[in-house]
Amino acid sequence: MSLTRVHNLSISLDGFATGEPQSAEAPFGHAGQRLHEWMFRTRFWDQGGTTGVDDAFAERHSVGIGAEIMGANKFGPPGWQDDPDWKGWWGTEPPFHTPTFVLTHRPRPSIDLEGGTTFHFLDASPADALEAAREAASGQDVRIGGGATVVRDFLAAGLVDQMHVVQVPLVLGRGVRLWDGLEGLEDSYDVEAVSSPSGVVHLTFRRALA
Amino acid sequence: MSLTRVHNLSISLDGFATGEPQSAEAPFGHAGQRLHEWMFRTRFWDQGGTTGVDDAFAERHSVGIGAEIMGANKFGPPGWQDDPDWKGWWGTEPPFHTPTFVLTHRPRPSIDLEGGTTFHFLDASPADALEAAREAASGQDVRIGGGATVVRDFLAAGLVDQMHVVQVPLVLGRGVRLWDGLEGLEDSYDVEAVSSPSGVVHLTFRRALA
Repeated sequence: MSLTRVHNLSISLDGFATGEPQSAEAPFGHAGQRLHEWMFRTRFWDQGGTTGVDDAFAERHSVGIGAEIMGANKFGPPGWQDDPDWKGWWGTEPPFHTPTFVLTHRPRPSIDLEGGTTFHFLDASPADALEAAREAASGQDVRIGGGATVVRDFLAAGLVDQMHVVQVPLVLGRGVRLWDGLEGLEDSYDVEAVSSPSGVVHLTFRRALA
Repeated sequence: MSLTRVHNLSISLDGFATGEPQSAEAPFGHAGQRLHEWMFRTRFWDQGGTTGVDDAFAERHSVGIGAEIMGANKFGPPGWQDDPDWKGWWGTEPPFHTPTFVLTHRPRPSIDLEGGTTFHFLDASPADALEAAREAASGQDVRIGGGATVVRDFLAAGLVDQMHVVQVPLVLGRGVRLWDGLEGLEDSYDVEAVSSPSGVVHLTFRRALA
């Protein structure tokens, strides 16, 4: 059975998954890299990194994943749609290594890059995008790669089976909130929390069995 | 040295310390008692309750406290100021056992109740209210008893030395948010997080040493 999963989605104490304003120079706005420092310190990111609970969660990001779906705001800075040569932030070998579906109201032809990443561009509902990604994943799971707006849309549509959120002890004050419009989400999920010596808290959501 | 402390302030994943609408029948609105069930299960609340990490945090609520400051919304339901006989939610022996200062734009004469609780009513700024409570605390600490708006005002004014927040795995969606207007709070505090087997996360803030 192919699941739909969210991994390593980092938010502040006040629930922001990115700061503002987002730009080419500051993809996470005033948050900078502060939401992701926990991950940069793990072996998942850096061969000499930590191997404790943060790494255990982080490395699940890629295991068993056959496709990713991301929002337009993850693929590039505001206005990337006007640049026909934009191929994403990640250079010639992006870290996805699977078919990767970018949700945008202005689709363009697919882009094949090294290491197995192919970007496809879709103007589609969450359910339709998931169907396309599921097909491309060849029986493996589909990752919803963010940002927060896209994760929230998939949660609201009841399409997420597993979610891993990392809460970082910052109060960002402004940006894009993960939790808006999701009142009662806990009714559909079993939720676990575990704190890490690094100071972050890992929250895992597993769709409750019917 | 007399400190200013916050204890057992329970919030949802999305940062709400109460639901809405608040009324005499539903002091926490649609949140009901769900934000505080973790506390009801502890020995602090119930002699037969749990004695683990939740209880260890909960029972610090009263230790070394010489006075409390609370907001008008904690003292009674909307409109209590129009009822000259309203003496708070807690009956003839409230659980405060100290001078307790209620912030309201419509002060009334003080009320002496059993068990050492005296309610005083103040129309004052956070700093002035704290000065009055500090004086009444006879060298002990002052607790900021909530609700969220009052705690936020004292945090914004830089008046809180220690804060204990309990994050409950609920998405409330609406109510009164704790974190609004507190961008960068982590710069002034050392923050710790510890998860409990009960599912909640205890966050402690200690004012960073200069």
